[in-house]
Amino acid sequence: MKALLWDGREARVVDRDVPAPSDGMALVRVSLAGVCDTDLQIVRGYMGFCGVLGHELIGTVESGPDAWKGRRVVGEINFACGICPTCRRGLGRHCPTRSVMGILSADGAFAESVAVPIANLHAVPDSVPDDAAVFTEPLAAAFNLLEQVHVPPGMKATVLGDGKLGLLVAQVLQRAGASVLTVGKHRDKLDILARRGIETTLFADWSRSPSDLVVEATGTAAGFETALGVTRPRGTLALKSTVADGVPLNLAPVVINEIQVVGSRCGPFEPALQALATDAIDVRSLIAERVPLERAAEALQIAGTKGTLKVLIENRRGG
Amino acid sequence: MKALLWDGREARVVDRDVPAPSDGMALVRVSLAGVCDTDLQIVRGYMGFCGVLGHELIGTVESGPDAWKGRRVVGEINFACGICPTCRRGLGRHCPTRSVMGILSADGAFAESVAVPIANLHAVPDSVPDDAAVFTEPLAAAFNLLEQVHVPPGMKATVLGDGKLGLLVAQVLQRAGASVLTVGKHRDKLDILARRGIETTLFADWSRSPSDLVVEATGTAAGFETALGVTRPRGTLALKSTVADGVPLNLAPVVINEIQVVGSRCGPFEPALQALATDAIDVRSLIAERVPLERAAEALQIAGTKGTLKVLIENRRGG
Repeated sequence: MKALLWDGREARVVDRDVPAPSDGMALVRVSLAGVCDTDLQIVRGYMGFCGVLGHELIGTVESGPDAWKGRRVVGEINFACGICPTCRRGLGRHCPTRSVMGILSADGAFAESVAVPIANLHAVPDSVPDDAAVFTEPLAAAFNLLEQVHVPPGMKATVLGDGKLGLLVAQVLQRAGASVLTVGKHRDKLDILARRGIETTLFADWSRSPSDLVVEATGTAAGFETALGVTRPRGTLALKSTVADGVPLNLAPVVINEIQVVGSRCGPFEPALQALATDAIDVRSLIAERVPLERAAEALQIAGTKGTLKVLIENRRGG
Repeated sequence: MKALLWDGREARVVDRDVPAPSDGMALVRVSLAGVCDTDLQIVRGYMGFCGVLGHELIGTVESGPDAWKGRRVVGEINFACGICPTCRRGLGRHCPTRSVMGILSADGAFAESVAVPIANLHAVPDSVPDDAAVFTEPLAAAFNLLEQVHVPPGMKATVLGDGKLGLLVAQVLQRAGASVLTVGKHRDKLDILARRGIETTLFADWSRSPSDLVVEATGTAAGFETALGVTRPRGTLALKSTVADGVPLNLAPVVINEIQVVGSRCGPFEPALQALATDAIDVRSLIAERVPLERAAEALQIAGTKGTLKVLIENRRGG
């Protein structure tokens, strides 16, 4: 099969054996896969991963238990042991011995097929087309905020960043009843939110005022201190990006204003699928480009161009 | 009256007019005052404050409303406006126009007398001697953690640091039902906790294991990353120190492990007074030295000597 392999130096489409799923795994024929900023970070050295990239997918189970065979599915990316204390606590996404699809010790979804634990599969309702379902994973990451932070109706929230994640987070928060302002640098992207009735402003025009919840989704090192500056005393700053590493930071405002900083990563698939089934979140406006699997290396390049939203990789033999 | 004045260059005992309290203020004759690390930071330039130092006190109301006159009191240090949106939200300690006793735009308690808003006074039960009551403010800061973090019975907590704050925090958490381990560098200090049945270990002997709650109370820049390393996924790291400023930090583990970092500063006086009244917290073992007000500058020097616990300044004409 064709697959986009990152060998530590180069990402290129290669011919590879179809995965032979072990016990408890299903083989999923990929229809569509989405490029995430994490993929771009990996080819810059993040995680030291080598293997097939990709962790956002929609596909069809081609081998596995009968109950699953032929079903359209999405797959959670953290492959947990299921039995350790962390897993038993319900925190399988943090299992210390986990592998992570296309990120850590497990091949990913920029391929014709991918092996996914049966426990990680979620059936996709017929009403959700492939090019919406492929957003389940990043949308789940946005829903994760609601799992971590209590968002009472009318909570004043500011989302910093109009990239893929910012656009999803803003919609999830608005749908939960928060009063959301999104700050970005691209009028066309902010308009995706404006069309859904979400208040937006260009960074240059932003009149900063304190918020109960600030979500740092710029993916820039400067974002943290900007976010800190607009989080009200005893407010919450949610960090959705791992970018700032080794950057000199001043944490004194966290203490003085007694701010709660919450790191947030992967999230629950069910609310994401439910939101997609009711068309409550506009994801398809985020699609920038569709590239066939054979040209997946090019897809990474396109996705890496500043300002590009979601690039999808199509497996034309899939689905 | 005598007072320890910090003029931006030197801390020295001077003669000053007794404060003339404005409306809503009481004049408190100081009996005992405690030296806090914040005082030491101020004489190194923190907050740019100039004035009479000191914010931990026990004293007697010498002028003010009849209901208060002659009563033994402690005083909250944040002088709030009481009417702004932040105050109306119950967050007077974060009032944006606040002054702070001995720290920001208000003279402090290393003096014969200090002016304190009546709204900030708390009567001290007769059963609490002066040298325990003087710990109300730092003990309240420890209790603040319980206001910010849900501490269920048996929660596994690690307190990093056996300084004044660490010793108070460890006791407050144990009393709340947490299972506490305190990590420090001084056997004699840790023994104060061991006598109360709290598990302790020297830093050198510490076998690190993940905790639900980690309290960074070392006051060192390295403390944050050490604390992060032992906070379990989805756990809480409480920051009690403003020391790390401009230090290169890697926040990626906060995101990957979805940790909640909570900044924590001043706290509620009532639970602190209640704990002192029932002798539930050992504060008097923390007293390292008592120095008369006339030698208050020396008290700062003693407090600044590495490893010194609480230095008290006695106003022998007070009480």
